[in-house]
Amino acid sequence: MLHVGINGFGTIGKRVADAVRVQPDMTVAGVAKRSPNFEATIADDRGYDLYAADGREPFDEADLATAGTVHDLIETSDVVVDTTPSGVGAANAPLYAEHDTPAIFQGGEDADVADVSFNARANYEKAVGADTARVVSCNTTGLSRLLAPLRESYGVEKSRVTLVRRGADPGQTGRGPINDTLPDPVEIPSHHGPDVQTIFPDLDIDTMGMKVPTTQMHTHSVNVTLESEPTTEEVTSLLTDESRLFLIPETLGIDGAGKLKEYTRDAGRPRGDVWENCIWAESITVERRDLYLFQAIHQEADVVPENIDAVRALSERTASAEKSIRRTDEALGVGR
Amino acid sequence: MLHVGINGFGTIGKRVADAVRVQPDMTVAGVAKRSPNFEATIADDRGYDLYAADGREPFDEADLATAGTVHDLIETSDVVVDTTPSGVGAANAPLYAEHDTPAIFQGGEDADVADVSFNARANYEKAVGADTARVVSCNTTGLSRLLAPLRESYGVEKSRVTLVRRGADPGQTGRGPINDTLPDPVEIPSHHGPDVQTIFPDLDIDTMGMKVPTTQMHTHSVNVTLESEPTTEEVTSLLTDESRLFLIPETLGIDGAGKLKEYTRDAGRPRGDVWENCIWAESITVERRDLYLFQAIHQEADVVPENIDAVRALSERTASAEKSIRRTDEALGVGR
Amino acid sequence: MLHVGINGFGTIGKRVADAVRVQPDMTVAGVAKRSPNFEATIADDRGYDLYAADGREPFDEADLATAGTVHDLIETSDVVVDTTPSGVGAANAPLYAEHDTPAIFQGGEDADVADVSFNARANYEKAVGADTARVVSCNTTGLSRLLAPLRESYGVEKSRVTLVRRGADPGQTGRGPINDTLPDPVEIPSHHGPDVQTIFPDLDIDTMGMKVPTTQMHTHSVNVTLESEPTTEEVTSLLTDESRLFLIPETLGIDGAGKLKEYTRDAGRPRGDVWENCIWAESITVERRDLYLFQAIHQEADVVPENIDAVRALSERTASAEKSIRRTDEALGVGR
Amino acid sequence: MLHVGINGFGTIGKRVADAVRVQPDMTVAGVAKRSPNFEATIADDRGYDLYAADGREPFDEADLATAGTVHDLIETSDVVVDTTPSGVGAANAPLYAEHDTPAIFQGGEDADVADVSFNARANYEKAVGADTARVVSCNTTGLSRLLAPLRESYGVEKSRVTLVRRGADPGQTGRGPINDTLPDPVEIPSHHGPDVQTIFPDLDIDTMGMKVPTTQMHTHSVNVTLESEPTTEEVTSLLTDESRLFLIPETLGIDGAGKLKEYTRDAGRPRGDVWENCIWAESITVERRDLYLFQAIHQEADVVPENIDAVRALSERTASAEKSIRRTDEALGVGR
Ligand SMILES: NC(=O)c1ccc[n+]([C@@H]2O[C@H](COP(=O)([O-])OP(=O)(O)OC[C@H]3O[C@@H](n4cnc5c(N)ncnc54)[C@H](O)[C@@H]3O)[C@@H](O)[C@H]2O)c1
Ligand SMILES: NC(=O)c1ccc[n+]([C@@H]2O[C@H](COP(=O)([O-])OP(=O)(O)OC[C@H]3O[C@@H](n4cnc5c(N)ncnc54)[C@H](O)[C@@H]3O)[C@@H](O)[C@H]2O)c1
Ligand SMILES: NC(=O)c1ccc[n+]([C@@H]2O[C@H](COP(=O)([O-])OP(=O)(O)OC[C@H]3O[C@@H](n4cnc5c(N)ncnc54)[C@H](O)[C@@H]3O)[C@@H](O)[C@H]2O)c1
Ligand SMILES: NC(=O)c1ccc[n+]([C@@H]2O[C@H](COP(=O)([O-])OP(=O)(O)OC[C@H]3O[C@@H](n4cnc5c(N)ncnc54)[C@H](O)[C@@H]3O)[C@@H](O)[C@H]2O)c1
Repeated sequence: MLHVGINGFGTIGKRVADAVRVQPDMTVAGVAKRSPNFEATIADDRGYDLYAADGREPFDEADLATAGTVHDLIETSDVVVDTTPSGVGAANAPLYAEHDTPAIFQGGEDADVADVSFNARANYEKAVGADTARVVSCNTTGLSRLLAPLRESYGVEKSRVTLVRRGADPGQTGRGPINDTLPDPVEIPSHHGPDVQTIFPDLDIDTMGMKVPTTQMHTHSVNVTLESEPTTEEVTSLLTDESRLFLIPETLGIDGAGKLKEYTRDAGRPRGDVWENCIWAESITVERRDLYLFQAIHQEADVVPENIDAVRALSERTASAEKSIRRTDEALGVGR
Repeated sequence: MLHVGINGFGTIGKRVADAVRVQPDMTVAGVAKRSPNFEATIADDRGYDLYAADGREPFDEADLATAGTVHDLIETSDVVVDTTPSGVGAANAPLYAEHDTPAIFQGGEDADVADVSFNARANYEKAVGADTARVVSCNTTGLSRLLAPLRESYGVEKSRVTLVRRGADPGQTGRGPINDTLPDPVEIPSHHGPDVQTIFPDLDIDTMGMKVPTTQMHTHSVNVTLESEPTTEEVTSLLTDESRLFLIPETLGIDGAGKLKEYTRDAGRPRGDVWENCIWAESITVERRDLYLFQAIHQEADVVPENIDAVRALSERTASAEKSIRRTDEALGVGR
Repeated sequence: MLHVGINGFGTIGKRVADAVRVQPDMTVAGVAKRSPNFEATIADDRGYDLYAADGREPFDEADLATAGTVHDLIETSDVVVDTTPSGVGAANAPLYAEHDTPAIFQGGEDADVADVSFNARANYEKAVGADTARVVSCNTTGLSRLLAPLRESYGVEKSRVTLVRRGADPGQTGRGPINDTLPDPVEIPSHHGPDVQTIFPDLDIDTMGMKVPTTQMHTHSVNVTLESEPTTEEVTSLLTDESRLFLIPETLGIDGAGKLKEYTRDAGRPRGDVWENCIWAESITVERRDLYLFQAIHQEADVVPENIDAVRALSERTASAEKSIRRTDEALGVGR
Repeated sequence: MLHVGINGFGTIGKRVADAVRVQPDMTVAGVAKRSPNFEATIADDRGYDLYAADGREPFDEADLATAGTVHDLIETSDVVVDTTPSGVGAANAPLYAEHDTPAIFQGGEDADVADVSFNARANYEKAVGADTARVVSCNTTGLSRLLAPLRESYGVEKSRVTLVRRGADPGQTGRGPINDTLPDPVEIPSHHGPDVQTIFPDLDIDTMGMKVPTTQMHTHSVNVTLESEPTTEEVTSLLTDESRLFLIPETLGIDGAGKLKEYTRDAGRPRGDVWENCIWAESITVERRDLYLFQAIHQEADVVPENIDAVRALSERTASAEKSIRRTDEALGVGR
């Protein structure tokens, strides 16, 4: 049984904790938080040991029991998943090293925070036995999962992607824009392309980013110039076989993220989470060597199974990507 | 065991079906739908018998088995809950009468569609043994639950409410507004007040409606001039005791519907549904005989437990409101 | 000719400058800015002398000529209008005192920043000859204009207002919420009521605030319990006679701020500005002594004519409110 | 003097009328409308003769004088610009033919409604002396203006564009989405590419469309693979020279459509209209033969100068594109 500590119990952290909990080979060592808000109540309900990230006083005042400080959590964990806000992870890195505890960081950190930038489908092996890994961002995860099979089957000459990003997560009421489409960043290519190259160093990819007034999912318009000329049907079939890609059938009548998440909520998924890239099946189009498609990425969820796989890779318990991915997916319900 | 048929398997219908399913004394006789979209898939997953509202062909084409037509469903049901779009319920009413099957309508219909306009907390007894009842709209349900205990404990001289309504449900991508606050209706008082009077005929209430670009919840700014002068603490304690009112504690850090629904999703509720009126505890203020507060109403969910109670009332199996409400709440998880 | 300096050339400042420019008895002494963004270009196009609020370097680098520092501007001005962000005005106050230059502050400052809180229609005379005045906020201005004639004609027993506020101005892309209605502030009554009382100290008013994802206008749902019982027609006619209230006729087909501002843009107003409170004529309703109505307030514009009047009051050039208001309105085009 | 009739006085029609009015060689023969809403008031204010599209009764009732029916307008006009909703133009076509009046249609109609699909910069000559022309849609106009100089100077091998479209115009409060990014259409390539090919029949272009919750402007992420290898500076200088392209300098601090339109409103443009494609100068990037950039298109405005040029082309008064464009731009203020 792997004891996994979660440092930072917010959007990503609480999902990773719940995902750890349902794995047959892992258990939640505890979670570290700063303040006793509604998410602390949730940790308490789930029975996760609560560790104080900054000091125990606020929790004492709110009558929430804490099991120790973040140092105690790191000490008690076989692996720590750091899910603090971007930048804080890098500041925490020396802590994990000091305790000699393998650590996983998130995509908000720079690539050099860790030995390996990680995506389970694309480069699991590189993280096996590493001290630290960085699970790449939600957008990079989404692109890596899509590009990996395309590269293997057809070769990728060049990829051009426009990422139309949600302005805020549903609870982030302070963030905009309210009524605007922002080129963000204005510079082209955006940082997303180089981030994908931390997974595929030799990939030729140009990305353009925008920000729009939605809270639900990112949407990518993807163009991939392949090195060979498959048919639309062949590509569709290739992508259908990938467990972390969901091809939305036309008959479901799903026109966007709203109905998509209504569907997963209806299906009874925890938090209505969409762990898979969602590709509109009708949109898949091959014209000569040019593949086009639309995919939606649930920013809060797609990195969650990747974190689980990263834990297995660092701990060296599971040497094969396929085996870890299958285990994660079965336990969580990915691909169902 | 009561066999409950659901005619119209959309936003409200699918929730009512799932709520029926978890009741100890009810079972889903089947659900009627028009088209084989994603919600049909969900019905199928749940194992609900699917009846064709308009003809079986579209389902045959989509390879979805149907158990009959809507007539068959009505015949096989002890009670039918009609959750078709507003206006369609009235058109369906003769059908239920013809089959002599007690029927429950929704708030989109005019009051005269049914013998009784229904709210479990306020007037359960009036529906006991009736042939038909109309569960009042989400907004009226929210106001009735709040006003019932206030009337009983303090008397209500007059109520003035502004209803700031969500423009669309999350999947209704065709509805606006995108960037506007609309007086809607422009006329004052809005129809909401008279609708509340179908529950409390002698209540003095003036309502004003607006529509804004959100999809999550309605928000009410409520003023009630009471007939006596309780303290803020007394009102708070009165409302806390109501099972279908949730007083949001300040410590949770919940500033709006986004964090509120994140909280219920985190808590593992089906679809993250919020069946209760959510009242910001800090907002409760009594100034002389004037009570003020803010409440948020999850339009997709608050009428669901009411429909369950209405089924029990029409069927005459449970004569007491308290007993039905307690059963419904326990089975669903309301108030937890 | 009054020389009016504008310190802070943003949303309010640039409008005040343009309004000063068209007055027969005033001229723009210059405007002070911090950074050479697009608004600096506009100042330059208009021919306003540009003064550096923080240092001239950034302007030198952008090749924009500056006429001096903010001290020079204050020295050269008969009256200064401070339109810096909220809080900065208070910090600037000693500066104006030092130079012995009468100063006008905006509603983002606390009331004690100035001798008088000002609304032209309600208390012009109080500011005549004062050293400093604070033009109350957009919302308070909107309420004062409405309440003044009601108090005079009918007496006001009590007022209850819900203010549904726009989340951000059109260019403020960093502010939310994107998809939420927030009670803001959660506490009741909100600070808006006391702010109205800086204009009418003896007024009984309770206000409740919300924030929604729009950028165009605030919308108020207003209830006023009068001391007498006029008819709806009498109130309509009273309000029609006020130059800074615009009653939207039903025939125009204007359902919200979008069409309203399209109308003023079509009409050729500078920036499409709506200086008047816009009251939906159909919404005006009197039930016994209770008056109800909806009004929309263009946050960027309604305080502009008030600032002009405040300049006249401080300078003592125009002793009568009516005369100043008429002059301002004619020069700007208010009420046309 | 050319007498230009405008049939349909909505978003596009009122702008075309105002643009005709300021041309030295044209005058507004009259405008046809269906209903006496706020736009009819505007027509009246401007002194445009009002013709009844459907019958004079509604105008009589609203006390608005009409000069005749739409037939009278067509008869009295040298050229008619049809700016009715999409689909209505095609239905009107026989009317113009019957009266032998040259007619201009808008982009909401199919290409076969007219002899020529028109963009002033790209194919003015083709419309000279034609009976009918269709000014292509706002998006197609934006792409044509950009691609024309690129084709002439460097050759275009292929173009790939993602069009992130505003969900509604500011006054269209009934249209969504409120909180969603929709692939729209889901099929790839979208119809926008073929529409651009009505201007450049041999162009290789693939387009992908989305719809987002904004009302202000469309935003394009553009990729053009050129046939030669200019530098970024060369492309920037080429585009700077085009009168209907505006390159947003970084120093203005304009991050999206909100600040952009604030800038044009500040600058005093009628309705704050942005007739030019707005290209973020920083975004222009050439990597080998691949050009990338972001441009924003004001959907309500960019086709307006094109309609003016189309009038000149059909009337044969001005044979040269350059001459017409220069005249239009000077009279309107395009490029200033
Ligand atoms: N939200 C997303 O869409 C998303 C998607 C993929 C990756 N990420 C990345 O995941 C990481 C976490 O993001 P999030 O959205 O979950 O953030 P969040 O703000 O929702 O949660 C962060 C949590 O960390 C806590 N925290 C803050 N400072 C801390 C400290 N010093 N020590 C311990 N805990 C601390 C906060 O209280 C909060 O509970 C970031 O690197 C982010 O870039 C986020
Ligand atoms: N959505 C809300 O927020 C809400 C809240 C409270 C009450 N209501 C009321 O509940 C009722 C249902 O609303 P909803 O939001 O669930 O609508 P919906 O559109 O989500 O669902 C209606 C369902 O009925 C089906 N349907 C349509 N015509 C039918 C017919 N002739 N026969 C059988 N089925 C048919 C549709 O296919 C759909 O599945 C309405 O009266 C509405 O006013 C809705
Ligand atoms: N925007 C509104 O809706 C609105 C409505 C009514 C009242 N107000 C009030 O008006 C005031 C100004 O608000 P705004 O919306 O125009 O702000 P803004 O941010 O649009 O403009 C403020 C301007 O002041 C400049 N500035 C910042 N610090 C400065 C300094 N130290 N010295 C000089 N200039 C400085 C900024 O560069 C900017 O040009 C605030 O008190 C605000 O509360 C705003
Ligand atoms: N709004 C845009 O963003 C935009 C941009 C480019 C092109 N277009 C195209 O321009 C055309 C007009 O669009 P719009 O946005 O101005 O529409 P609109 O709805 O704003 O205006 C259309 C006008 O035509 C009137 N009308 C309707 N039926 C009529 C009839 N039978 N006879 C005469 N008048 C009638 C309406 O009352 C209205 O005044 C469409 O083809 C549209 O696709 C629109």
